[in-house]
Amino acid sequence: MKRWIKSTGRPALSAVLFFCLAVPGLLLADEPPATVDVTKVLDDLTGGASALRIGLDTVWVLIAGILVFWMNAGFALVESGFNRSKNTVNILAKNFVVFGIATLSFWIIGWGLMFGDGNAFFGTQGLFFVSGADNSPALGAGYEAMNPFSTAVYEGVYNSINWTPIPLWAKFFFQLVFAGTAATIVSGAVAERIKFTSFLIFSFILVAVIYPISGHWIWGGGFLGSNNFRDFAGSTVVHSVGGWAALAGILFLGPRLGKYIDGKVFPIQGHNMTSASLGAIILWMGWFGFNPGSTMSAGDGSAIAYVMVITNIAAMTGAITAMITAWILVGKPDIGMLINGLLAGLVAITAPCAFVTMTSGAIIGAIGGVLVVFLTLLLDKLKIDDPVGAIPVHLGNGIWGTLALGLFYNNDIATTVAALPTGLGMLDQTLVQLKGIAVVAVYVFAASAIVWAILKFTLGIRVSKEEEIEGLDIGEHGNEAYPDFQARAR
Amino acid sequence: MKRWIKSTGRPALSAVLFFCLAVPGLLLADEPPATVDVTKVLDDLTGGASALRIGLDTVWVLIAGILVFWMNAGFALVESGFNRSKNTVNILAKNFVVFGIATLSFWIIGWGLMFGDGNAFFGTQGLFFVSGADNSPALGAGYEAMNPFSTAVYEGVYNSINWTPIPLWAKFFFQLVFAGTAATIVSGAVAERIKFTSFLIFSFILVAVIYPISGHWIWGGGFLGSNNFRDFAGSTVVHSVGGWAALAGILFLGPRLGKYIDGKVFPIQGHNMTSASLGAIILWMGWFGFNPGSTMSAGDGSAIAYVMVITNIAAMTGAITAMITAWILVGKPDIGMLINGLLAGLVAITAPCAFVTMTSGAIIGAIGGVLVVFLTLLLDKLKIDDPVGAIPVHLGNGIWGTLALGLFYNNDIATTVAALPTGLGMLDQTLVQLKGIAVVAVYVFAASAIVWAILKFTLGIRVSKEEEIEGLDIGEHGNEAYPDFQARAR
Amino acid sequence: MKRWIKSTGRPALSAVLFFCLAVPGLLLADEPPATVDVTKVLDDLTGGASALRIGLDTVWVLIAGILVFWMNAGFALVESGFNRSKNTVNILAKNFVVFGIATLSFWIIGWGLMFGDGNAFFGTQGLFFVSGADNSPALGAGYEAMNPFSTAVYEGVYNSINWTPIPLWAKFFFQLVFAGTAATIVSGAVAERIKFTSFLIFSFILVAVIYPISGHWIWGGGFLGSNNFRDFAGSTVVHSVGGWAALAGILFLGPRLGKYIDGKVFPIQGHNMTSASLGAIILWMGWFGFNPGSTMSAGDGSAIAYVMVITNIAAMTGAITAMITAWILVGKPDIGMLINGLLAGLVAITAPCAFVTMTSGAIIGAIGGVLVVFLTLLLDKLKIDDPVGAIPVHLGNGIWGTLALGLFYNNDIATTVAALPTGLGMLDQTLVQLKGIAVVAVYVFAASAIVWAILKFTLGIRVSKEEEIEGLDIGEHGNEAYPDFQARAR
Repeated sequence: MKRWIKSTGRPALSAVLFFCLAVPGLLLADEPPATVDVTKVLDDLTGGASALRIGLDTVWVLIAGILVFWMNAGFALVESGFNRSKNTVNILAKNFVVFGIATLSFWIIGWGLMFGDGNAFFGTQGLFFVSGADNSPALGAGYEAMNPFSTAVYEGVYNSINWTPIPLWAKFFFQLVFAGTAATIVSGAVAERIKFTSFLIFSFILVAVIYPISGHWIWGGGFLGSNNFRDFAGSTVVHSVGGWAALAGILFLGPRLGKYIDGKVFPIQGHNMTSASLGAIILWMGWFGFNPGSTMSAGDGSAIAYVMVITNIAAMTGAITAMITAWILVGKPDIGMLINGLLAGLVAITAPCAFVTMTSGAIIGAIGGVLVVFLTLLLDKLKIDDPVGAIPVHLGNGIWGTLALGLFYNNDIATTVAALPTGLGMLDQTLVQLKGIAVVAVYVFAASAIVWAILKFTLGIRVSKEEEIEGLDIGEHGNEAYPDFQARAR
Repeated sequence: MKRWIKSTGRPALSAVLFFCLAVPGLLLADEPPATVDVTKVLDDLTGGASALRIGLDTVWVLIAGILVFWMNAGFALVESGFNRSKNTVNILAKNFVVFGIATLSFWIIGWGLMFGDGNAFFGTQGLFFVSGADNSPALGAGYEAMNPFSTAVYEGVYNSINWTPIPLWAKFFFQLVFAGTAATIVSGAVAERIKFTSFLIFSFILVAVIYPISGHWIWGGGFLGSNNFRDFAGSTVVHSVGGWAALAGILFLGPRLGKYIDGKVFPIQGHNMTSASLGAIILWMGWFGFNPGSTMSAGDGSAIAYVMVITNIAAMTGAITAMITAWILVGKPDIGMLINGLLAGLVAITAPCAFVTMTSGAIIGAIGGVLVVFLTLLLDKLKIDDPVGAIPVHLGNGIWGTLALGLFYNNDIATTVAALPTGLGMLDQTLVQLKGIAVVAVYVFAASAIVWAILKFTLGIRVSKEEEIEGLDIGEHGNEAYPDFQARAR
Repeated sequence: MKRWIKSTGRPALSAVLFFCLAVPGLLLADEPPATVDVTKVLDDLTGGASALRIGLDTVWVLIAGILVFWMNAGFALVESGFNRSKNTVNILAKNFVVFGIATLSFWIIGWGLMFGDGNAFFGTQGLFFVSGADNSPALGAGYEAMNPFSTAVYEGVYNSINWTPIPLWAKFFFQLVFAGTAATIVSGAVAERIKFTSFLIFSFILVAVIYPISGHWIWGGGFLGSNNFRDFAGSTVVHSVGGWAALAGILFLGPRLGKYIDGKVFPIQGHNMTSASLGAIILWMGWFGFNPGSTMSAGDGSAIAYVMVITNIAAMTGAITAMITAWILVGKPDIGMLINGLLAGLVAITAPCAFVTMTSGAIIGAIGGVLVVFLTLLLDKLKIDDPVGAIPVHLGNGIWGTLALGLFYNNDIATTVAALPTGLGMLDQTLVQLKGIAVVAVYVFAASAIVWAILKFTLGIRVSKEEEIEGLDIGEHGNEAYPDFQARAR
């Protein structure tokens, strides 16, 4: 079915080792002869260690990728739990299909635009992954890329991500689950009123084009990364991008029926706090892949462990300060705020986790938790209806975390953990971060708004009033989420 | 509590290294002496690298095994979600106990029958694991097997699975969770009407005897594997076998009350789409252990990454084509079909994932997604009641995937990823696959039918009409799943 | 974003290897010269292997830690599922915040008390982690500790946990999730009637002080460990400690309204068996990190695999015997007993998993499953109200497992798997275990009782009757868990 490690063949080395080991033995011939085949042992070892290194890195990055993949379940549960039961099937279905769309669009074009060699703005090499990877006699160029021992071909293609020696497909998988996350962020904000097909089309464009281009600027060799902008695991690359796309969407969509009437806010309660809580724990767990996995190798265990612990601490301070802030403002420790505070801390620490001290991490999370409550109240003031709090969590804290990398920038941590020091002081780094935030904001918001606008004036993006009242589950899918209970519930 | 690595003691090697390192130093005595204990470093390294290799492989295979284990949660949620609330406790309880039964039966006899050395049909060595593993003074033979450095004993016993150097208990765990999966497939098909005890007895026999024997044919050194039949991770070994056992079961059981009346089909809606969707994501996640973990070592990171990505792509094309097919046929993107399309793609890619190109994987999943919708409709035509779609998903796509390995067979991929090339062309490989499918079909269906028949005419396999109407939760367990809500629901 | 492995610089070794490799070549000058840079390869290899070892161990321990972290979701779901829907939000919220509290309290003081060098009773070095880890110019002492290659500082501080070479933060994360588990055990027992704030204060004290001190006795270099008391993964350190704290709590709290009336027991049914079952599978999965991860290195794959399998077998025999015992005593295979039997087997095997044979593991689990049913009935006789069965599961089986380590003690397994043989016979080991159980019992119960008493007579620990009847979700949080369904349910 499977096999043990490939022979990696290093005959020249074996020959040298043979002399090294055999000759002294000849000189002292009265010594007992070796009872093990030393040449073989050392040869195995040498070959084995290269494969071991790649095996270990691959295992770590893929497991981290699985944890990020798992965040799909977290988003599905938090989003559906925070919305009404009549729209549950729609939200769940969106979460499945959006990852399918992301897989295909990132495979076809997104990966190449993001990580392909090219100019400062987008990749121009290895654009169509499918043709690069699975083409020509003996499977051709891309197939070679699969084999880490024959990297000749893709090293001229995806240089921006060649700092980690894991196989190309491992890189692809890890980056794919990140791209899928960005699309899922939008899903929550536009819930309970968006047309299923229009959402799918937007998601395709987001993951195929919009997300990879700004990603290229920061992680793919583009102008922001080369100008010292830093974002370790994606507060901006993933979360703000998803957040800006979502904000554009809900501005075009408008609030749900009944949310704002005569200047008053009528809170719409989510139908399942068990779902929402389980989803939040899943997201938290997934972040242990998201942030520490962004080392994309296991070559430095200390860095992985550091990022793991700081991620958890920021999550916890975020949850606690959000709970306390809500307690003070509304009188009770509301579970929705607790959950969004947790997520706020996680989003905020995503960029700076490898650039700041542990104590700074605790402070960044704590501020994130306060911020999320105030931003939620602000959105209601502005009558911007965001059913799950995606804007406060992903956009607000994505910006905050990216900025915090500058404000709390520590060169020793940057050198040791991130291995990407800029040498800039706090002020300069903060200015660089600010510029990056602004550039991404303008680009993603504008690009998303154009797509949403086109969709609005062609296919339409909002379901009918009747369907919104009855629920999208019946209208879009012909299903009910809980038919044994729901007839009575509606 | 615990410790660092054992000293592995290789004195002969140390001696040789000593001479290698010390003698040249003597010849050039004016050189600075070594400031580190080189002998020790290299000795540690040599011993360490062997232990590293085994440690890494063990960690990878056990984590993959944990992911497959986790599929128990996925099956429990998909099955209970797709059925009515009044049978939820019964389905959940079955899922717990069936894994308990599987653990014990595979430990007692199944493992030995499957992987023990023997003839072309079943294992005859190391049959009773308990006695092989935990017996005689100083714990005896089996205990030695636990220690990878003293493999003398079990190498003469489980040769078919000695291609991977992981410890025996790691092999056992990984194979156990596979065996448990086969039994769980049956659970969904027979839901809402089977007697609890009869199901437990069938599961015991399936995992103790039926599953290991056909498994031996393919993975345990038996006649199918040695005749070039290939099944990387178990489209046939696990999924079709479970599917045939389930099909035999539901033919003996008959449809649920009220499903088919006067030639018409009355769909019975599942009670919880949140459960079903979460379960589906869990299964999908589990497959990232099921398929890539079937490398059973981390010696080739590229192979693991390749299998991971192709598994995900087939899942996604399956979900999307099933959704579109349902959309065309019934007018809406039904979530049940979306979920079963996802699972269909996963089952279909399980056999060929290490033998076909990435594009072929996308096509195999896409066809699986269409197939699952048509098979679901066909079963209803035939009045075969399969509450969760286990037959379309696991049997139909298990067959399809096994066949697809032949139809899309690529020798380069087989050589590089699976390391098990047959050298046969597409046509010949397809014929070999077809023969294997047929042999397994006849054997498993017949053996299962005999067991179901004996159970039917002794203990009985179906609950009373009264119990079926009231629900098996009360009847079999004296529990309700949702007592706060259910009185109103029934 | 990140980088490949750091150069680890071992010039002395390189020099020696150079002579080893170059000199023989000079002696046989007619031999072909090496075509690879052997010195570099071996140097990379040596440096690489150290980093590989640490990388692999870190990855394994952190993944195991993530699995233990994941048990938070399991506890949240089992506890909320076994209770009524009107208290669901409260239970879920407690589970979030208690981990936040645990993170902060263990970071601030708990870790130092437990693993800091000190006397036989508690740690006195490295007490305040925050100052040790993140202090002074260039981040100072603690920051060095993060780097495994400069361990000078913390080796004089945390000697008791220096047997594993993983980075300090990896040790911290793994131990933190254990500490969090102990606090969560209390949560279930005091459910449906405890004041939110009082519970949070108790949790803080438990994780900051009570848990680390008894932990120090056993794992931190204290008097129990040095007197041959053994507890591989925490039947006593974690589960009994949590259990004693819980028992003290519910004695002060008293039973829920309506549970015991006029000498009769009125069972209060849990609201969601889907939640409870999913939670139980999550806990089971988490235990595959809890027990095998307690190796805290991947240096011995065999030990990890052994502990994995014995953990699963004990879980399964526990589930099956509990089901059968309930079947005999109450006439049906109750799912609550099935789940608690599973957990009982897991708790019971936690101490002895690396000290007993596989068959002994099966027996220990089986006895645990019977025990949990009888203890549950006993508690009701005594009118001690434990809504989730935390006392039978964690306290009863924590004690049983710790004792079983002695009763089934096998020196060969202890030497090979745990690497911590005592050489004591069965009787002597059992006596040692008994003494340890008694000492921990007296200490934890007394300390907890004092804290509960102070809380009771200051802030109060029980909600008002009105709030208990209406549900804590409204009273403590102003939320409902299932607003679409619940108005009708109450």
